[in-house]
Amino acid sequence: MHPNLSVWLVIFLLQYSSITFASDPDPIQDFCIPNPKFGSIKTIHLTILPCKNSSEATTDDFIFSGMKIPGNFSDTGLATISVNPVLFPGINTLGMSFVRADLKVGGINPPHFHPRATEIAYVVQGSVYSGFVDSTNRVFARILEQGEAMVYPRGLMHFQMNVGKKPATVFGSFNSQNPGLQRIPAAIFGSGINDELLEKAFGLSPKQIDSMRRRFEPKKSRGRE
Amino acid sequence: MHPNLSVWLVIFLLQYSSITFASDPDPIQDFCIPNPKFGSIKTIHLTILPCKNSSEATTDDFIFSGMKIPGNFSDTGLATISVNPVLFPGINTLGMSFVRADLKVGGINPPHFHPRATEIAYVVQGSVYSGFVDSTNRVFARILEQGEAMVYPRGLMHFQMNVGKKPATVFGSFNSQNPGLQRIPAAIFGSGINDELLEKAFGLSPKQIDSMRRRFEPKKSRGRE
Amino acid sequence: MHPNLSVWLVIFLLQYSSITFASDPDPIQDFCIPNPKFGSIKTIHLTILPCKNSSEATTDDFIFSGMKIPGNFSDTGLATISVNPVLFPGINTLGMSFVRADLKVGGINPPHFHPRATEIAYVVQGSVYSGFVDSTNRVFARILEQGEAMVYPRGLMHFQMNVGKKPATVFGSFNSQNPGLQRIPAAIFGSGINDELLEKAFGLSPKQIDSMRRRFEPKKSRGRE
Amino acid sequence: MHPNLSVWLVIFLLQYSSITFASDPDPIQDFCIPNPKFGSIKTIHLTILPCKNSSEATTDDFIFSGMKIPGNFSDTGLATISVNPVLFPGINTLGMSFVRADLKVGGINPPHFHPRATEIAYVVQGSVYSGFVDSTNRVFARILEQGEAMVYPRGLMHFQMNVGKKPATVFGSFNSQNPGLQRIPAAIFGSGINDELLEKAFGLSPKQIDSMRRRFEPKKSRGRE
Amino acid sequence: MHPNLSVWLVIFLLQYSSITFASDPDPIQDFCIPNPKFGSIKTIHLTILPCKNSSEATTDDFIFSGMKIPGNFSDTGLATISVNPVLFPGINTLGMSFVRADLKVGGINPPHFHPRATEIAYVVQGSVYSGFVDSTNRVFARILEQGEAMVYPRGLMHFQMNVGKKPATVFGSFNSQNPGLQRIPAAIFGSGINDELLEKAFGLSPKQIDSMRRRFEPKKSRGRE
Amino acid sequence: MHPNLSVWLVIFLLQYSSITFASDPDPIQDFCIPNPKFGSIKTIHLTILPCKNSSEATTDDFIFSGMKIPGNFSDTGLATISVNPVLFPGINTLGMSFVRADLKVGGINPPHFHPRATEIAYVVQGSVYSGFVDSTNRVFARILEQGEAMVYPRGLMHFQMNVGKKPATVFGSFNSQNPGLQRIPAAIFGSGINDELLEKAFGLSPKQIDSMRRRFEPKKSRGRE
Repeated sequence: MHPNLSVWLVIFLLQYSSITFASDPDPIQDFCIPNPKFGSIKTIHLTILPCKNSSEATTDDFIFSGMKIPGNFSDTGLATISVNPVLFPGINTLGMSFVRADLKVGGINPPHFHPRATEIAYVVQGSVYSGFVDSTNRVFARILEQGEAMVYPRGLMHFQMNVGKKPATVFGSFNSQNPGLQRIPAAIFGSGINDELLEKAFGLSPKQIDSMRRRFEPKKSRGRE
Repeated sequence: MHPNLSVWLVIFLLQYSSITFASDPDPIQDFCIPNPKFGSIKTIHLTILPCKNSSEATTDDFIFSGMKIPGNFSDTGLATISVNPVLFPGINTLGMSFVRADLKVGGINPPHFHPRATEIAYVVQGSVYSGFVDSTNRVFARILEQGEAMVYPRGLMHFQMNVGKKPATVFGSFNSQNPGLQRIPAAIFGSGINDELLEKAFGLSPKQIDSMRRRFEPKKSRGRE
Repeated sequence: MHPNLSVWLVIFLLQYSSITFASDPDPIQDFCIPNPKFGSIKTIHLTILPCKNSSEATTDDFIFSGMKIPGNFSDTGLATISVNPVLFPGINTLGMSFVRADLKVGGINPPHFHPRATEIAYVVQGSVYSGFVDSTNRVFARILEQGEAMVYPRGLMHFQMNVGKKPATVFGSFNSQNPGLQRIPAAIFGSGINDELLEKAFGLSPKQIDSMRRRFEPKKSRGRE
Repeated sequence: MHPNLSVWLVIFLLQYSSITFASDPDPIQDFCIPNPKFGSIKTIHLTILPCKNSSEATTDDFIFSGMKIPGNFSDTGLATISVNPVLFPGINTLGMSFVRADLKVGGINPPHFHPRATEIAYVVQGSVYSGFVDSTNRVFARILEQGEAMVYPRGLMHFQMNVGKKPATVFGSFNSQNPGLQRIPAAIFGSGINDELLEKAFGLSPKQIDSMRRRFEPKKSRGRE
Repeated sequence: MHPNLSVWLVIFLLQYSSITFASDPDPIQDFCIPNPKFGSIKTIHLTILPCKNSSEATTDDFIFSGMKIPGNFSDTGLATISVNPVLFPGINTLGMSFVRADLKVGGINPPHFHPRATEIAYVVQGSVYSGFVDSTNRVFARILEQGEAMVYPRGLMHFQMNVGKKPATVFGSFNSQNPGLQRIPAAIFGSGINDELLEKAFGLSPKQIDSMRRRFEPKKSRGRE
Repeated sequence: MHPNLSVWLVIFLLQYSSITFASDPDPIQDFCIPNPKFGSIKTIHLTILPCKNSSEATTDDFIFSGMKIPGNFSDTGLATISVNPVLFPGINTLGMSFVRADLKVGGINPPHFHPRATEIAYVVQGSVYSGFVDSTNRVFARILEQGEAMVYPRGLMHFQMNVGKKPATVFGSFNSQNPGLQRIPAAIFGSGINDELLEKAFGLSPKQIDSMRRRFEPKKSRGRE
């Protein structure tokens, strides 16, 4: 094949399509490392690129070294590094992924849920108020100390807050390679749901809804203000 | 066995335990109707009671007749009849359940999600503003007319509002026998999550949080005030 | 890439291949809308085309509007619109599909089964004799009225007949995006199974088998007679 | 516990209930042998009896010796030994089962399907016309010789006929511990489906339907004639 | 029920049976905490005890505090705390479990595999030579430093050795609530496989096999010598 | 498309990539035969080639004829024909595969396991010592005679030895289309695991380890000596 054609093909595939993962079941091969010849996986959102021939897999394909230090902190004092197959191709098709979450003193991980996975949260350091809410609106929450672990059942809303006097680090693991994420405040008030519906749902005034919107809508919109 | 002992055993099991379903996978028998001899299934929350011998199953075990008319309406103008194995034992182990939802004119089904199922919502009558939010906080919503159907992908937050001039009815079906449900307003503000965390998450004042709490916390608590 | 090449590639893929779905398990992304740039999905039989970039998905991708009126009626008075990912790309990878079935007065949906799904049949209007047969050859059947629902367990043979005095409409939903379908009369007598085997299996004479064949074999064959 | 009480409890459980298997997924323990202390498993139809403590499992629990010779032959010259957990407790929860089928010269295995499994049919001896029908009513069939194997995809109708000059033996294996079985002739004509529906479905006269019924309805009914 | 009878029933169940988990699929309820009224779960090996009524679940049911310090070290310098539902009932039915492994300087975790899960191994502290072998007998191994993670694909043999100058701690998580474990040396030489087979398989002399046996057979056997 | 381009594309795909199977769950179409137009499937290691249009499938696609006679025997007197989708495309996506294993008199199938499947081993002829080891290092083994079958639970180590006076043949079937395989001797001593770790794990001297390595490392390495 003419060498340029492979480049063209890659560009073509990257521009026009995104073959996403179709399932999270038992693997049916030892592993399946996406083939970087088809483009840098880091620029593509969870696409299924053709896999490398298994004989070309290397040890480094199965090791993730990118979370030795915390990620970038948000306004709420939270820094997360979500390690899915985009960051760590070696877990592709193997039904697991993980996250490093750091919380500044007083920082919070706002109420959120993962639509497609259970999570085990292990406190590497710090004191973290941690909990989840079940289908009957009961909360299960208390402070976790270093070395303790909590389970957040599949799909249920959960949250964390650093209540200690030093930074906290949590290692979370998931039983899906792409658990998904919905952060409640932004999903509700930053997504553009009809105002009237939100007013009725939360018992808030149009003015209050408008105030929430300004806080949570995507930054580019705020920039336009 | 002494006849009274079987009664005792039933009472004992009902009082002390609740063997819940362990999975939602492929069935491995034609069907499995819970055995009413072990107590009225309607008073037990999703327990796995021993199944009837299959030769004792009857046609009526596989038919649900309890949603010919709407259920009871809530404050937001919503009436739902959630048909899981507690109401309809015949679907036990078969991986599906369904719901009839009625909306008064202007009524809403507040933002909520089902932790364990995709939903197909079919508009039996009326005009319903309907949508969901994805993991990137984009909303997909528009008005559905009678005969249209919308899919809410597994675990993603969705909502409905009757924007027509007559009552609306939606038939929703799920690919789990017990999809679960978290209604956002009550799960967030009516469950007892730590105030400070909520203030930081939503940017609300303690007073505002307190006001939300009073609206959404369970009625028995309000009664105590 | 040379613009014509992408066209060539599409044509090439459409002519020579058909990458079909490989599974019906938990989704591992929010959704996956097939990319129409790779050909009109309606002309391809359930192929996995590369998916759209999720940022290009639109609200209409998740809504199906094509079953507001009945489909075309067969000789037995049945009209079905089977809504799988070919008709409704938005359900791709989400583990569900559905069908609208209309029955004329006296019309029947002949005995059939879906190899890969349980079905919930909800009677939108009319009176429908409905039932299924289990692995021990017991039939579970009775007349369903408007608002009632029946479950047909995965893979078991079932059937319907409009026994009312007006047209009937049934909305069926499945826990597979492609449940499959085998209609018994045509699968047995219209598929070309060896005559001797059918004679022995049903106790019919060669002449009777021949008569059944003529009734159920595909139309193009009948045209050749 | 009074020794008699355990006996009572067993009798009670056997009389009033039948806790059937709830799923066919990945096992979550090495194995799970039903505990014979709770009654002879051979007299119970696929119940989930409490499992033996794994330390009490023996080698013989994992070996099946009951199909060294053919089973009893039916009128169509077929003898099958279906090896599910009732006959072979050791496969409980492991997601597989198997069958020995023997066919007399000219004998047939009538069109049937397994609602919950794919089958691999391996011809141990003989010449067997073997095939299946797909969802588009195409038949895939030819004669298999000793040492050949055919796959019948999950849920699709298939059939066999001994076309050789000596007895034939087939070893079939399934990817479900309880694949289920519907034999078309008996499921259609021996189950009691409404006559009018069958007449319309097959284009047969009431007299013909009546003749078919007499052939395929259960023996106890015929005995009453 | 007479209060003593419930005690009898518990004792009876504990003595004669062990209802083990039947599957590791999607949960179909929020959670399912085994009911301690039916005996101390810590003394029973992975039994499915009836679950608590969900309204009786407490926060502590979902938090594991028993791995703040290392477990007991083996001869090879390894201490593991395997956290399955026996130790941590809250993960029951949720499809995940985890392990804390500590390695003394020079200590090893001998080649082993988990028959039912993929593992993510996260190095909490220390320097650990870590690797796995694939189906083609290729090894993928290198030294992991603190903060790095490695994936061991489902069912593949893997191993660890502390090559640093201080103790090492690894947190491993699994996508099964009971991944199982086979340590190669003991499974091969300590289980009682026929000598002749082992001699042929490994090319060892009877004397060498005998020496290996003495090293790896269970302690009680060694005690008898 | 220029005819040569399709050739180029095939060559390109074969050289640079290997799209492997992503799952082993329920199929979502009747079948999916890989399209040979994209290269000879026999030269590619378990790649997902685009499937044939289902209308082009033929009967021979679903029949495997390549194991009428034994395969090539190894040094240990074992000949296996592993029938996965590379050899038998018709089973692609259907969740099953199988193997013919022949053992010379005294021949062994060394201890091995399949990471992703349960196996049913059916003795077609001969006397075979057969067994497996569970997670507690207990062995379950005895001699199987012709017509007997043994189950090896998912992922557990098992082995076979012909203890009769004539050749033995075993037909094994799996509930995965690609169960995987790790033969213990070669996986441990022929894969290149760190010497020190092996010495500590097995209690062997460096010299003994070196001797084992020479026996089990791949032939090309031995050639270099």
